[in-house]
Amino acid sequence: MKNKGVLLVVSGPSGVGKGTVCQQLLKAHPEVFFSVSATTRKMREIDQEGVTYYFKTKEEFEQMVADDALLEWATFCDNSYGTPKAPVLERLNEGTSVLLEIDVQGALQVKKNYPDAVLVFILPPSLSTLEERLRNRGTETEETIQVRMKQYRREFEQATAYQYLVINDDLSKAVCDLEAVLRAEQMRTERCQQIIEEVFE
Amino acid sequence: MKNKGVLLVVSGPSGVGKGTVCQQLLKAHPEVFFSVSATTRKMREIDQEGVTYYFKTKEEFEQMVADDALLEWATFCDNSYGTPKAPVLERLNEGTSVLLEIDVQGALQVKKNYPDAVLVFILPPSLSTLEERLRNRGTETEETIQVRMKQYRREFEQATAYQYLVINDDLSKAVCDLEAVLRAEQMRTERCQQIIEEVFE
Repeated sequence: MKNKGVLLVVSGPSGVGKGTVCQQLLKAHPEVFFSVSATTRKMREIDQEGVTYYFKTKEEFEQMVADDALLEWATFCDNSYGTPKAPVLERLNEGTSVLLEIDVQGALQVKKNYPDAVLVFILPPSLSTLEERLRNRGTETEETIQVRMKQYRREFEQATAYQYLVINDDLSKAVCDLEAVLRAEQMRTERCQQIIEEVFE
Repeated sequence: MKNKGVLLVVSGPSGVGKGTVCQQLLKAHPEVFFSVSATTRKMREIDQEGVTYYFKTKEEFEQMVADDALLEWATFCDNSYGTPKAPVLERLNEGTSVLLEIDVQGALQVKKNYPDAVLVFILPPSLSTLEERLRNRGTETEETIQVRMKQYRREFEQATAYQYLVINDDLSKAVCDLEAVLRAEQMRTERCQQIIEEVFE
């Protein structure tokens, strides 16, 4: 029997830098498998099948839902997005840890379908920092900023359902924090069946 | 409200090197408070009051037990040993993490009295490594070694009640593992009340 991999699920409001934190983690830990989502949205020029997304027709996606082949899924603006279950579970059973970067609703679905998942919420140092970053982009109207801030507050309230909170004040510190969560979770007794057997060998 | 400190409880069989792992952790993290036990055993030359132990008379120790002033305690060979509760709880409430290096029975008592405690068991790479190390000391008879190995097996069986298993194969790796557990546990949502409040400020 092998040690189980850790299913690390990372969420956080847009603008918090969670994408960068995840990329840095993967760079430092190439042994971690990054789960690629399936989507019904149209392929864009920058997209690569199996890299940015797995592109599916609406019918294919509906079939995946019907087959219970997704760990979580949701529809935004008429496009559906989801996490294919089989590749994730295969990796975990092989002892490989898996990283998912998904939204709060998706993360809570994953936790429900796979209770062993480890949920990490990336926070900004403060809500006002986030507002400032958003304003500094200069691409959003005041109204959009206010709508976003309301949405963030709602998301933060759900962050208390997550097991870990990481503050992205300093990027390298946040990456180390996420690494510590991954490393610690790999040492959880319930995942260490192989270690226990080897010691008793 | 402050973030709560982590009560990190480390156990492992003698010969596994848990003392060295703990010392290295404290060296790297002087902000962690190392809990000093109280004991009724006689002071020896190397002892220092409040450093190696707090030395108590039998009556004083019994009074501590009666006052529920110990997080855990036990008697071995007519000497009692215990962990004073007040200094540990004070530090934790201040947000300081606390390290306890105690035996399995004590650790399980701590977990019962303070369910938030984080239990880490240090393992040798294998039981045969431990037997070899014991034999290489050259100070034990074959009979003692066999008795010890039996005791170790019993202790390992209890290790599954611990939350984390750290293998001490390579000292610096084991120290990093213990640091990761401490760091990750400090990020647990339930301990991060201060962070949540600051973000919402």
